[in-house]
Amino acid sequence: MPPAFRFRLLATDGAARCGEISTPHGAVATPAFMPVGTQATVKGLLPEAIRLAGADILLGNTYHLMLRPGAERVAALGGLHKFMNWPHAILTDSGGFQVMSLAALRKVEEHAVIFRSHLDGTLVELSPERSIEIQTLLGADIAMQLDECVRLPAPAADLERAMRLSLRWAERSRRAFEAAPAGRALFGIVQGGDDPELRLASASALVDTGFHGYAIGGLAVGESPAVMRATIEAVAPALPVDRPRYLMGVGTPADLVEAVARGIDMFDCVLPTRNGRHGLAFTRRGPVVLKNARHAEDPRPLDEESPCAAARDYSRAYLHHLVKAGEMLGAILLTTINLAYYQELMRAARAAVVAGQFEAFRAQTVGLWEQGDIPPR
Amino acid sequence: MPPAFRFRLLATDGAARCGEISTPHGAVATPAFMPVGTQATVKGLLPEAIRLAGADILLGNTYHLMLRPGAERVAALGGLHKFMNWPHAILTDSGGFQVMSLAALRKVEEHAVIFRSHLDGTLVELSPERSIEIQTLLGADIAMQLDECVRLPAPAADLERAMRLSLRWAERSRRAFEAAPAGRALFGIVQGGDDPELRLASASALVDTGFHGYAIGGLAVGESPAVMRATIEAVAPALPVDRPRYLMGVGTPADLVEAVARGIDMFDCVLPTRNGRHGLAFTRRGPVVLKNARHAEDPRPLDEESPCAAARDYSRAYLHHLVKAGEMLGAILLTTINLAYYQELMRAARAAVVAGQFEAFRAQTVGLWEQGDIPPR
Repeated sequence: MPPAFRFRLLATDGAARCGEISTPHGAVATPAFMPVGTQATVKGLLPEAIRLAGADILLGNTYHLMLRPGAERVAALGGLHKFMNWPHAILTDSGGFQVMSLAALRKVEEHAVIFRSHLDGTLVELSPERSIEIQTLLGADIAMQLDECVRLPAPAADLERAMRLSLRWAERSRRAFEAAPAGRALFGIVQGGDDPELRLASASALVDTGFHGYAIGGLAVGESPAVMRATIEAVAPALPVDRPRYLMGVGTPADLVEAVARGIDMFDCVLPTRNGRHGLAFTRRGPVVLKNARHAEDPRPLDEESPCAAARDYSRAYLHHLVKAGEMLGAILLTTINLAYYQELMRAARAAVVAGQFEAFRAQTVGLWEQGDIPPR
Repeated sequence: MPPAFRFRLLATDGAARCGEISTPHGAVATPAFMPVGTQATVKGLLPEAIRLAGADILLGNTYHLMLRPGAERVAALGGLHKFMNWPHAILTDSGGFQVMSLAALRKVEEHAVIFRSHLDGTLVELSPERSIEIQTLLGADIAMQLDECVRLPAPAADLERAMRLSLRWAERSRRAFEAAPAGRALFGIVQGGDDPELRLASASALVDTGFHGYAIGGLAVGESPAVMRATIEAVAPALPVDRPRYLMGVGTPADLVEAVARGIDMFDCVLPTRNGRHGLAFTRRGPVVLKNARHAEDPRPLDEESPCAAARDYSRAYLHHLVKAGEMLGAILLTTINLAYYQELMRAARAAVVAGQFEAFRAQTVGLWEQGDIPPR
């Protein structure tokens, strides 16, 4: 019997938390950052490199995987862990967010969302029940309810309609999930946009239904950092302390630190991977754009104090050359460096919470970012 | 003092040879296959992955590196080994071949070849002396003379003119190389197209001049396999037994085995890397096109008996999915698999020569290719 899903809160410091999630595919130290493995691969990285960068858990995209190669095919091949050779934990999203952002002709009905595949135009119906079925076929350790995510700013009526629909879908997801193998987890998703009252109504109803964990959806969709932080501050206290809290699709290193400070335990975001492919490195000293001419003759590594070998073993001049030449290795090294930086940030946040030093960690981290890149000697 | 260039012939079996090259950056077991690191990177692979696949030596392209990032810049950054984080041996070509195939407005004069950069149209002059200077700045363990390579078929007069020019450039390269640091090697290049008399005249003159090793250039440029093999058979016996013999730009696994059978010690080719990026795997059982629908649901690895983890740890269905989805990881895994297969082929050839079993190795290897891909159960 593999271990069942379980969350243990190990320490708190103010609102910041340090914990551990058990899953059928191993433990996840929280706060945790989940690299995004959209099409059953974190773009450009071997599974062992993702693990070496410090990840305990990946995110898989239901929307992409249901369209290609298909959930039934992945299941026949032994599930997503085996398919992509990643033996550690996997969380899958519900598919809802990507339907909204990628698919054509999408139509949200009470029963389901109906859309055309961005790959071949096929008409597809995704209901809460089908989303859970797909995520179960993929073998996700943590599944997400189907929800409707509204881009901000949006009229209050739209936010409330989507929030109420998401709650009805949460109930249906919860029932559908009863057929899933034991030990796996289902998270509900708090919606309600930038309206604190809608958010609290959503959180309260979800907690009544009961989930293994709770996500905050519908952020990082156009609102200001201040709105994001205020929304987290409103929602987090309404969630049970003994369940993990996942802020979906967020964010920059600063977003992560501020969200941890407000009680968030889990994150996913394409920023470190997508920006890595486009020549931007996240470092202790803030973002560094490797394409800039100032790096062309710079023999120094990106950060000689980094725990990541890719940040130590290659000169800025070489990274600059690879980015300018459009070489895959540039994307590979910078994706590795960025994921390792995000993981290091989470590791340091966990250690700070355990030591009761979170405020000092936050001040020091932000202070280093504000200093900017290490100047050439 | 790093060890100087040296070649030791360890065993022969018929015309096939097994040897070892010493270089300032380590030993190279021969027959050796050199992966092509065009722009200071073997596309998609970390240096440690190239090494793990079995390579002792890489090839760097003078044409690409002189244009970007520039030889003087690489030298200022500590040389090509340090720049690309590859501490093992490097051979650089002279730049001549790529001038012919990539540059615009090229003009071959007695003094030099003049061309426009394919990157920005800059007018560039490459003389034998400048080619040696660039290769010395890059820090190549083995440098190649500048030559003129003619595409086949070609009129006899063109072949002879290019061969004679290449001989004069060989002399000039030899003199220019006297300024290179001790321990490095310079190879001459036999030209003469598909004309055995021209080839023998070229070889004889080069041997009189004296080089650390001898290459056969101007093959794999449009001729049939029979012409390639006949040319090697004509040239190899005219080369000194105590110097390595390098067949430039070749080739398929069958080309390699047939060339080793005729006394060749070194190879380079983009086939394993370029084909890997386009979804083709080289295996013990011949080439496998992963995009084919027959792999879509195949849970078997590409070759469960391969010494390469990438060929064992991922299903054909997964490789098919990555190739169809255009994912970088497909290119990375197939490049790794192909380079490992080429290296395994060379390792087995060396062992066969040492054991006096080369003919049995050749028959068995060709027999497996002819059986074709392992059928599904």
